Amino acid sequence: MTWEVLSMIGTIAFAVSGAIVAMEEEYDILGIYILGIVTAFGGGAIRNLLIGVPVSALWEQGLFFQIALLSITAVMLFPNNLLKHWQRWGNFFDAIGLSSFAIQGALYATQMNHPLSAVIVAAVLTGSGGGIIRDLLARRNPLVLKSEIYAVWAILCGAAIGLGIAVSSAELYSLFVIITALRVLSYTYKWKLPVKRLGIR
Amino acid sequence: MTWEVLSMIGTIAFAVSGAIVAMEEEYDILGIYILGIVTAFGGGAIRNLLIGVPVSALWEQGLFFQIALLSITAVMLFPNNLLKHWQRWGNFFDAIGLSSFAIQGALYATQMNHPLSAVIVAAVLTGSGGGIIRDLLARRNPLVLKSEIYAVWAILCGAAIGLGIAVSSAELYSLFVIITALRVLSYTYKWKLPVKRLGIR
Amino acid sequence: MTWEVLSMIGTIAFAVSGAIVAMEEEYDILGIYILGIVTAFGGGAIRNLLIGVPVSALWEQGLFFQIALLSITAVMLFPNNLLKHWQRWGNFFDAIGLSSFAIQGALYATQMNHPLSAVIVAAVLTGSGGGIIRDLLARRNPLVLKSEIYAVWAILCGAAIGLGIAVSSAELYSLFVIITALRVLSYTYKWKLPVKRLGIR
Repeated sequence: MTWEVLSMIGTIAFAVSGAIVAMEEEYDILGIYILGIVTAFGGGAIRNLLIGVPVSALWEQGLFFQIALLSITAVMLFPNNLLKHWQRWGNFFDAIGLSSFAIQGALYATQMNHPLSAVIVAAVLTGSGGGIIRDLLARRNPLVLKSEIYAVWAILCGAAIGLGIAVSSAELYSLFVIITALRVLSYTYKWKLPVKRLGIR
Repeated sequence: MTWEVLSMIGTIAFAVSGAIVAMEEEYDILGIYILGIVTAFGGGAIRNLLIGVPVSALWEQGLFFQIALLSITAVMLFPNNLLKHWQRWGNFFDAIGLSSFAIQGALYATQMNHPLSAVIVAAVLTGSGGGIIRDLLARRNPLVLKSEIYAVWAILCGAAIGLGIAVSSAELYSLFVIITALRVLSYTYKWKLPVKRLGIR
Repeated sequence: MTWEVLSMIGTIAFAVSGAIVAMEEEYDILGIYILGIVTAFGGGAIRNLLIGVPVSALWEQGLFFQIALLSITAVMLFPNNLLKHWQRWGNFFDAIGLSSFAIQGALYATQMNHPLSAVIVAAVLTGSGGGIIRDLLARRNPLVLKSEIYAVWAILCGAAIGLGIAVSSAELYSLFVIITALRVLSYTYKWKLPVKRLGIR
């Protein structure tokens, strides 16, 4: 149950985030749908690949697919003056997608008895896979790798689940809220991780 | 039979389209072969991934591989003054590859009893997967997402096959000709889909 | 045995090469780890996909994962004045990764009785897959496709193994040294393959 809800939230969030990026890049209507769909399902496809579930299991998600299409349509119908006022929505939805998919990826990997390091990697790549594909297709610098705190939160997710700290539904939903909040705080206040420069000078 | 012919046409078309992009980008001889091969087989690899056929099934396509190598060699040996005169060939071959691979992807998905939405997605991603990889590697804006009508034709393919409108060989070949023609018309006359701008101003 | 040693060398080399690229691009600390890990395991993931081993087999490589993390940490702790003096290290490690992974990919494909053409493609894509993903993520022009001799050496590897010229451990290690040396020579002396220009004028 928790599972499906998290998948659904992540799917909507990433579909919307892809659609917003596509609108920012002035793609046509179909391009908006495509980028939304790819962002929403790219994370799941990479997760399936990484943990040994057939990628074709995606096809069973007919409901999710329709939800994604609906979300994208809703975003497109949204009045422009609201959307532009809220361009940070792109980041916000990305944050929700990150935390829900990171949790879900970590749960999957735990269930398959993968070791802790694998749970963490699964959380990071599931949470950021869709966003990486989105940024690559839109020819942007992948958000994940920018000097902004992003993947740290997915690592936290993976550790919390892999170490058995978050197990029950209530704990997982709390984790979801905490991780989303941390991501929102980190881009709002521009928290940075240290950079190791090669030091030209 | 129809199957193999369509695969072959798509393979040649995408191999040539990759080679032409590589020449435009002034890659060396090997880079031309690599981009041609990746473009030709990338669509098939993504299709296999998406519909649950092992990607390694590609290795059984020894004949196709040789055909792709031959096509690329032929393009490289082609006199320059003809090639440059025909740079739209890149687009033309891309159109053939799009329609043949979209049909083939949709057929595959239908045979595996996937639902209609999956047939359409399979058509779109099979038809455009190779081209997307090609454009990413050549650091171009993916053609599929540009404000030009591209993926609409793949969606049409998927719908025609998924709804059982095109079934016999004759119908499939007609579909192939129609889709290719529509793609050629759409870039020749610069048909556009509407764009939803975020409206900076 | 040879197998594991080559995998280990390739993993370290690509992890370091990814970390160096990330430092050049001024990524933050986590970005450096991510790019290092993706570069180190991307080649293996693509190889697994291509030859029909489940990608999730990567999770069994816990030791390799730790080695990669250690290597990246070591590079970050390295004094800057040495690192900047040795920026060609990026190329050098890339060369080691190329040859070790190309050999390993070709061995895998041979063991699975794939045909010669497949062995060569496996060598090329295994040897260069991690580097291609690294360059795409860092938004660089993929090294493999640049007008510098790169993939030729992977093809040589594939041919030597596919044709049964290099079989014993000693032969494979010699092949490793030769291929690495050829790659180093080719970028040091800027060997070029011919380019087929479309000739605008």
